[in-house]
Amino acid sequence: MGNQREAEGIEAELRRTFEQIIPFNRVLGLKIDSLDFKAPRLRFDMRPELVGNPVRQILHGGVISATLDVVGGLAIALASITRKAEDIPVRHFPDIGTIDLRIDYLRPGRGHHFLATGRVVRLGGRVAVAHMELVDDTGEQIATGSGAYIVG
Amino acid sequence: MGNQREAEGIEAELRRTFEQIIPFNRVLGLKIDSLDFKAPRLRFDMRPELVGNPVRQILHGGVISATLDVVGGLAIALASITRKAEDIPVRHFPDIGTIDLRIDYLRPGRGHHFLATGRVVRLGGRVAVAHMELVDDTGEQIATGSGAYIVG
Amino acid sequence: MGNQREAEGIEAELRRTFEQIIPFNRVLGLKIDSLDFKAPRLRFDMRPELVGNPVRQILHGGVISATLDVVGGLAIALASITRKAEDIPVRHFPDIGTIDLRIDYLRPGRGHHFLATGRVVRLGGRVAVAHMELVDDTGEQIATGSGAYIVG
Amino acid sequence: MGNQREAEGIEAELRRTFEQIIPFNRVLGLKIDSLDFKAPRLRFDMRPELVGNPVRQILHGGVISATLDVVGGLAIALASITRKAEDIPVRHFPDIGTIDLRIDYLRPGRGHHFLATGRVVRLGGRVAVAHMELVDDTGEQIATGSGAYIVG
Repeated sequence: MGNQREAEGIEAELRRTFEQIIPFNRVLGLKIDSLDFKAPRLRFDMRPELVGNPVRQILHGGVISATLDVVGGLAIALASITRKAEDIPVRHFPDIGTIDLRIDYLRPGRGHHFLATGRVVRLGGRVAVAHMELVDDTGEQIATGSGAYIVG
Repeated sequence: MGNQREAEGIEAELRRTFEQIIPFNRVLGLKIDSLDFKAPRLRFDMRPELVGNPVRQILHGGVISATLDVVGGLAIALASITRKAEDIPVRHFPDIGTIDLRIDYLRPGRGHHFLATGRVVRLGGRVAVAHMELVDDTGEQIATGSGAYIVG
Repeated sequence: MGNQREAEGIEAELRRTFEQIIPFNRVLGLKIDSLDFKAPRLRFDMRPELVGNPVRQILHGGVISATLDVVGGLAIALASITRKAEDIPVRHFPDIGTIDLRIDYLRPGRGHHFLATGRVVRLGGRVAVAHMELVDDTGEQIATGSGAYIVG
Repeated sequence: MGNQREAEGIEAELRRTFEQIIPFNRVLGLKIDSLDFKAPRLRFDMRPELVGNPVRQILHGGVISATLDVVGGLAIALASITRKAEDIPVRHFPDIGTIDLRIDYLRPGRGHHFLATGRVVRLGGRVAVAHMELVDDTGEQIATGSGAYIVG
């Protein structure tokens, strides 16, 4: 029961950090849609200020790269918490730093909302790697990404 | 003299497009600092909403990737205009689409303002490649990038 | 029946080109393991000259990047043939050029043989993007990759 | 004088490791052309087995990615030795592992020989980043790259 409550506490802290405390995440309007430890998911709505091409009304590429960077880091933070949690109680959200990022832009970002998912493909003691994808509200893949991160 | 005036017209149009018309560029606060055709440069000021880590007060990685994507596209647009301009009068700003992007995050983004520079390393008929870098207000390199772009 | 025979002819030509005609593919020992148009697969055996670290007896990173580059190009060539084949008889293998490549090295390359798979995630008229992976003989993922290619 | 002799010993060991002991480097024919600690350089000659397109007689993309991976690792190994050497005598060549790699293929690889240079752009305690380039025998840039490496 203590563990249950602690897990809920971590989840609430994560949500608050990602959605409220990190200023640029607020600019992007990122919301945690799922904290599935295998594949966490962020959601954001299309808004006028996120547009990169006003004629075509599509997402700015920077919104896409920013969101994929964040969801990759979130996936690694969660995997990292899970790993540690087997031994010791977790108090602090791990500090994850992006080493590098690749984004493939596959289709124009059109839609009312978008979902970004991250998956850890390597979790070392010092470096972790995640694969990410962004889909539109019809499930169509807008972009994919790959990022290497330093694990605090 | 016609060419001079046309060049100034293109420059004014470019500035307006980049700084005013593209909504997410306004969010980032991007200003054209130099339209040097070999190495155009963008500048933006640190602002509270661009922060990714409120404790450390450093730029969000997404601000960095977004800015480097834009300055790479700008470099290719300028190189593309220059190439065409040898033959024909240019009326329209070329449509440049990012195929993919790599960002290397080298140092935490601290400072009052930042400068992003793009340089074309390959200008094909269909695909172009640019190298980009972001430096802080002391000239320290914060990030480098490489992007492939479709040339309209 | 003509189509059947033609398909077999294309397959034989592909095999010969990939395995025999391209010199560096022979150095790598690449064999076409599957010509599944959705996910073609290459196979190669561990051999002493492919080693990058003689103490640890693991694959050289360059063997991995080379193989993933090839299988990404193969996936795009096949997808490109399939697309064209709906209209016209195909005589020539399409010319695919790599624009750029990202490789993530996930685990040391150990084993008796390795399998590389490519999947097309974007097939435009001028540019295509593939995702690739390399697994060892136990199915463990050694590396993943992403590449952008010019479609002849 | 002891330092001088030790430096020569390290250099000889490096040469032997890179050119003779690592099997796939021998396949590529890599020779150390310069051990300049700021920008080490590898050289290799065009040979029939390095060809990727026998009609056009150009380098296989995998030769390019492999060589750039190696020279990036060499640059980081040298920088890492230099850093340590300020405090303690160096006995062992540091173990550098590639985390990920990006290669931009800029021009077809034609020529009698090729030169690959690596430069460290970030040297952290755990992770380092290098930029690499490959030029042909006229100095023309064939490819550029960026790699993240784990520092032993």
